[in-house]
Amino acid sequence: MITVFAGGVGGAKLVLGFANLLNPEELTVVVNTGDDEEFYGLYVSPDIDTVIYTLAGLSNEATGWGITGESFRTLGRLKEYGMDTWFNLGDLDFATHITRTKLLKDGLSLSEVSQHIAKSVGVQHSVLPMTNDDAKTIVHTADGKMSFQEYFVKNKCEPVVEYLEFGGKKGVLPSGEVLHALKNSTSIIFSPSNPYLSINPILALSGLRGAISNFKGKKIAVSPIVGGKALKGPAAKLLKEMGADVSAVGVAKQYADICDVFVIDSEDAGLASDIEALGMSVAITDTVMNSKLDKVSLAEFILELCE
Amino acid sequence: MITVFAGGVGGAKLVLGFANLLNPEELTVVVNTGDDEEFYGLYVSPDIDTVIYTLAGLSNEATGWGITGESFRTLGRLKEYGMDTWFNLGDLDFATHITRTKLLKDGLSLSEVSQHIAKSVGVQHSVLPMTNDDAKTIVHTADGKMSFQEYFVKNKCEPVVEYLEFGGKKGVLPSGEVLHALKNSTSIIFSPSNPYLSINPILALSGLRGAISNFKGKKIAVSPIVGGKALKGPAAKLLKEMGADVSAVGVAKQYADICDVFVIDSEDAGLASDIEALGMSVAITDTVMNSKLDKVSLAEFILELCE
Repeated sequence: MITVFAGGVGGAKLVLGFANLLNPEELTVVVNTGDDEEFYGLYVSPDIDTVIYTLAGLSNEATGWGITGESFRTLGRLKEYGMDTWFNLGDLDFATHITRTKLLKDGLSLSEVSQHIAKSVGVQHSVLPMTNDDAKTIVHTADGKMSFQEYFVKNKCEPVVEYLEFGGKKGVLPSGEVLHALKNSTSIIFSPSNPYLSINPILALSGLRGAISNFKGKKIAVSPIVGGKALKGPAAKLLKEMGADVSAVGVAKQYADICDVFVIDSEDAGLASDIEALGMSVAITDTVMNSKLDKVSLAEFILELCE
Repeated sequence: MITVFAGGVGGAKLVLGFANLLNPEELTVVVNTGDDEEFYGLYVSPDIDTVIYTLAGLSNEATGWGITGESFRTLGRLKEYGMDTWFNLGDLDFATHITRTKLLKDGLSLSEVSQHIAKSVGVQHSVLPMTNDDAKTIVHTADGKMSFQEYFVKNKCEPVVEYLEFGGKKGVLPSGEVLHALKNSTSIIFSPSNPYLSINPILALSGLRGAISNFKGKKIAVSPIVGGKALKGPAAKLLKEMGADVSAVGVAKQYADICDVFVIDSEDAGLASDIEALGMSVAITDTVMNSKLDKVSLAEFILELCE
């Protein structure tokens, strides 16, 4: 079994590739929940939903969020009721958040709820939140501190980030399901999600970085930066603001102490020696995932590295 | 100012008539909340919504519930998530329940929330829940006890009713807003809603029957039974099961100790003396409200009785 750490869109693409190659019992996806937030009184878990919707074939690839063929009638009326509707949720998507909120209120854990939602839309692979506890990311910026979604959606990643604060309170633990998955895995894959916003919230969980350091199997990270640019989202801007190189090397430095292998795009082949100098081996392939074939090919390449 | 006690559809029709004749400060509607129930984790207040939607011109007159031009995309997906979706809620309607649930969670009272929702859709007249506390009606039937909505929607009023239990717990008080409205009213109108299911839950509130007995102004009830039949819903079936006459006389007996005037339909003119024998005066007019003109005419007729 392999465990994949994932955020939203980029992670979900690679996970879809793995899901096409591996049986349900061979793949566990551990998803960032630092982006979770309550909207309109409902508990929204954006990265979990992006992974589940992607695996279920429901995701809206054009927008990068939500469900394909959405409508926005509920949101339109919420606006009439004076709700601040900067966070877009569609009518189909609302059902997910209503279900999650109801089941959490009934006493189920976020892991149980996520599995229920996944199974309901035909997803057989395990999609686990990184923790069952509150671990919201606080983004401290030049314009003040804000939740991840305020930074990402409301303010379109424009504020300059000073630092990131992970976890709703200190010492948030990974869920038992996550620890169980790691114990039973032969490899850990860090998907090409934003290292600061999607992967670091996972690594910040109490004891998790240590567990990964002690992990005996392969540990492979994929660069989300290709040719000095982020494939999607604010990764490049954030690397710069955090004082890192806006390149695969800048990302590699984030993973140097916990990864064995760093996967970079063919376009970045010239950076291999700089990354090897950090103590990781480098694997080079086409990492840009547009088509389904791209996703499966990258997943296949990584699985070969695992052997 | 007049206070109108109302349930759902029948009450809302008459309220619309009054709203066309009276300024906002001249009319308060006190609405049954015995039908309230949580669905999909959201607080639903069906009679309040029927009154507000009717006054706002949003109500679906064909179905007798919900909003005109509804779609059911959210509900369809809730079903996929394994929710028991016997209680129909549309995408537009969901926004009302999401808003109500959120504002209640934020600490607003049901009265405050109802006023907010009403104002948001342009309703200027006061629409008040009968109480801010839990006062759910329990229907005890030959098939066991059930919530009002289980009886009314899920079981289509088919179970034989043995007795009705009002109030979530004993001694539920009317809201301060309701008592204030009564104190400042010159007349009380009992709309042609189901006396057992819509009006009695209001009268069962602690101290309210006494307050009405002591009320010095006009107290006028309108029969929901015309020609021995209910205009809508299970009123006739229920009168029979409760051992009452299925006629305007059977209804009049419910109101004999608290009303001065009983309004019956021209079709039932022959029953006037039987009702007068109960100690009420009788007023006869056309009470069936199909068109808007019907609603305004009946309201006008009642306002003349108030003078």
